[in-house]
Amino acid sequence: MKRISVDMDGVIANVYSQFLKLYTAETGKIITLEDAVGKFEHEVFENAYQYVTSPGFFRHAPVMEGSQQVLEKLNDQYKVFIVSAAMEFPTSFGEKRDWLNEHFPFIGWQQMVFCGSKEIIKADIMIDDHFKNLNYFTGETILFTQPHNQLADEGVHKRVDNWQQIEQLLLP
Amino acid sequence: MKRISVDMDGVIANVYSQFLKLYTAETGKIITLEDAVGKFEHEVFENAYQYVTSPGFFRHAPVMEGSQQVLEKLNDQYKVFIVSAAMEFPTSFGEKRDWLNEHFPFIGWQQMVFCGSKEIIKADIMIDDHFKNLNYFTGETILFTQPHNQLADEGVHKRVDNWQQIEQLLLP
Repeated sequence: MKRISVDMDGVIANVYSQFLKLYTAETGKIITLEDAVGKFEHEVFENAYQYVTSPGFFRHAPVMEGSQQVLEKLNDQYKVFIVSAAMEFPTSFGEKRDWLNEHFPFIGWQQMVFCGSKEIIKADIMIDDHFKNLNYFTGETILFTQPHNQLADEGVHKRVDNWQQIEQLLLP
Repeated sequence: MKRISVDMDGVIANVYSQFLKLYTAETGKIITLEDAVGKFEHEVFENAYQYVTSPGFFRHAPVMEGSQQVLEKLNDQYKVFIVSAAMEFPTSFGEKRDWLNEHFPFIGWQQMVFCGSKEIIKADIMIDDHFKNLNYFTGETILFTQPHNQLADEGVHKRVDNWQQIEQLLLP
């Protein structure tokens, strides 16, 4: 059975909507996609670090559309691991585990990985929104579109815009 | 640079001494090595689960003798990752990270991994006290002696009894 490494933030957890929400709550302004495209979160939101370290930021992130249904099917045909670079924000550990348990109850604790660098991950397929993770992975790579990578050339990675496209790729 | 996956509990963190301490505090009895050898912790200590989930169990574990000095040297010549199967006990996340930061300040957050199953770990060398981790690893395996594995045939794994032996093996 093939192993898949699935990222959390920006792939199954819609943290971008959390950034937008907190920014508007703080400033009263609205960020449009034109403001955000091609930029990392900390380039768009001046107080991005404060947002991600505020209680509830990860716990209350919306689920990415379609991810629950597709991941539940993938979980029958692949060894699925949820791999999150959570180590930078240790206050997020509990929130991320609680969030996974609530929204992805079919994912056991054996399938969860919180790491720093993903160069230690051994899998056949990696789904991620960051080149820094995909570029050092030796298996099949799937780039999940997010505002920060939207303008980039996907290079050797397959780009997908949503979970329906992942389903078509991996569950033909 | 070769990657080493280094286990926490029973390799750099002396959690066994925590079990012994809590057992004696609870029962007034003393466990000898003869009582413990060849048995898993939950077979020796009736309330092992309560011990590991009690606050401070991981935070106040003594450091394994010699591990700081040897790991600091290894850290110059290898890519060291501290890989702990912490996912089963989510309350341990913060304690384990704080413990690492205090006792191994030269290990950055990029080098820490909290997982469930270690079959997702890609490295060249794995140091661990559990066969369940070493047996599924395809690189070089080093079995760190602990009471539960003391009677077992080490099979294809190199057995070490302390960190001085690791130094001799990996920093010749």
